[in-house]
Amino acid sequence: MNPDLATYLAQCHQWMEDALKECLVRMSSPSPRLQAAMFHSLMAGGKRLRPVLCMAAAETILENRLDAMEMCREVACSLELIHTYSLIHDDLPAMDNDDLRRGIPTCHRAFDEGTAILAGDALLTFAFECMASSKHKHKNPGLLIEIIGEIARSAGPRGMVAGQMLDLASEGRKIEREELETLHKLKTAALIEVSVKSGALLAGASPRQMQSLSLYGSLLGLAFQVTDDLLDVTGDPLEMGKAAGSDAQSQKATYPSLLGLEATQSLASELILGALDSLKDFGTGADSLRLLASYVLERRK
Amino acid sequence: MNPDLATYLAQCHQWMEDALKECLVRMSSPSPRLQAAMFHSLMAGGKRLRPVLCMAAAETILENRLDAMEMCREVACSLELIHTYSLIHDDLPAMDNDDLRRGIPTCHRAFDEGTAILAGDALLTFAFECMASSKHKHKNPGLLIEIIGEIARSAGPRGMVAGQMLDLASEGRKIEREELETLHKLKTAALIEVSVKSGALLAGASPRQMQSLSLYGSLLGLAFQVTDDLLDVTGDPLEMGKAAGSDAQSQKATYPSLLGLEATQSLASELILGALDSLKDFGTGADSLRLLASYVLERRK
Repeated sequence: MNPDLATYLAQCHQWMEDALKECLVRMSSPSPRLQAAMFHSLMAGGKRLRPVLCMAAAETILENRLDAMEMCREVACSLELIHTYSLIHDDLPAMDNDDLRRGIPTCHRAFDEGTAILAGDALLTFAFECMASSKHKHKNPGLLIEIIGEIARSAGPRGMVAGQMLDLASEGRKIEREELETLHKLKTAALIEVSVKSGALLAGASPRQMQSLSLYGSLLGLAFQVTDDLLDVTGDPLEMGKAAGSDAQSQKATYPSLLGLEATQSLASELILGALDSLKDFGTGADSLRLLASYVLERRK
Repeated sequence: MNPDLATYLAQCHQWMEDALKECLVRMSSPSPRLQAAMFHSLMAGGKRLRPVLCMAAAETILENRLDAMEMCREVACSLELIHTYSLIHDDLPAMDNDDLRRGIPTCHRAFDEGTAILAGDALLTFAFECMASSKHKHKNPGLLIEIIGEIARSAGPRGMVAGQMLDLASEGRKIEREELETLHKLKTAALIEVSVKSGALLAGASPRQMQSLSLYGSLLGLAFQVTDDLLDVTGDPLEMGKAAGSDAQSQKATYPSLLGLEATQSLASELILGALDSLKDFGTGADSLRLLASYVLERRK
């Protein structure tokens, strides 16, 4: 891994772990079991890609990393809360029925199914409480509402949840490339794109800057799913913390199954080149976003 | 039923049915099955108590019913979206495992378990999109963020979700009255209380008015759960649209099982008298809230 990328990721990762832990500990639910289940899945060591993208997009506009991180703290945490809830529910027996996630038992395995459903519900609801709690930090409360609305739209029945529903309905059925792309855009790319957009909005990006950064987010989001499909074929289960080959096992349509491995690798590279190209009008402020684009292409988990 | 109450409920009910239908149809998910499942549970003819309380609280301050209803439209819809999501998830096999709700099959029975989990997730997320979409209507966006935060807090891991978790953990176990009250306050009363508070906040209630209306909401919320426990013993399954006696069957602690029937009826009356008393400084503007208090005591479903 590029040493700049490694240093950058390590810095963001530690910052996010602290921010997320503080966020959960301060919340303190009257049900210790619920809190433990939320903690189990949230602190299982994810990549924190969505919060990091949010902060990196703000950095592109503010041209100052620490200011950007501080400004985005609650929105960035909320994006990870929403991502974690979606993983808990996706892993349930009625969905993908997975036993392992990030190398440890999935929430319903470590606790039970009812607790896992409620832990997901709690994380999703708490994400909105967390965003609303940052009201005092932002000069323009109307902007915060806009961000809350954008994130809800991207995560809800017109975004991520619709993607998961289409994914369930596609199992064991032959689907075409166009349908697969729609599914992935909704299931994965929508939340990644809104992570970039929310950071940019918070930092006061102009409409033109927003257009470039939205394009970056949507291309990167799709690239992320394409590399996810690749990793399911070529990845190392130990590095990924979950079984490989699960897509083939559950007869899921993937890019490699539709296009073949080589063409899928080219597609991932093309999408990342497009994402990098959308940043061409930005200076060094966008270097973190550039590093993250190369990370998505090169990642091993 | 008091004819004023019947007229009032019929007016609000029709208005809410139209508002909810419009809200769902406008949303239009790319997954028709997801949208159908959301529609199935949302339009199954609930009492719409939470939105009506929100609008009645605003009416108390504005002293004009139509202005209050219009001002609260999106927040009122969102409260019903959140309530409906909680019913869908509570009915799941991993929770209460119910087959009927409001006289029709529960969501996982009419569709399947995965779809029901996702329909609940979608309704919850869409509630926040819906609230955020009312930004242009409110002069003070900071107030709308405060309301979003209050609703998320009351519905999340410090509110309703914690209550459902404690409820699951209490099945088949003997619990004391204090624990039962905590459970009910979280599971049921928190969302009812915030329904009243959000309407009052939207209408610009003073801190003193807020104090009285919060007290009304918390007493009414607890009374609602007490009468729910009573209906499970004494109610007519046909009127309720679900089986009676299900609490006893699943060995759930209830007020009648702890205090006996007569003492539970007295408790419900006392709570409602307290709720009415908290409205004593308000004029005729609070008459709708007064009617709703008597409704909670006299309801048959």
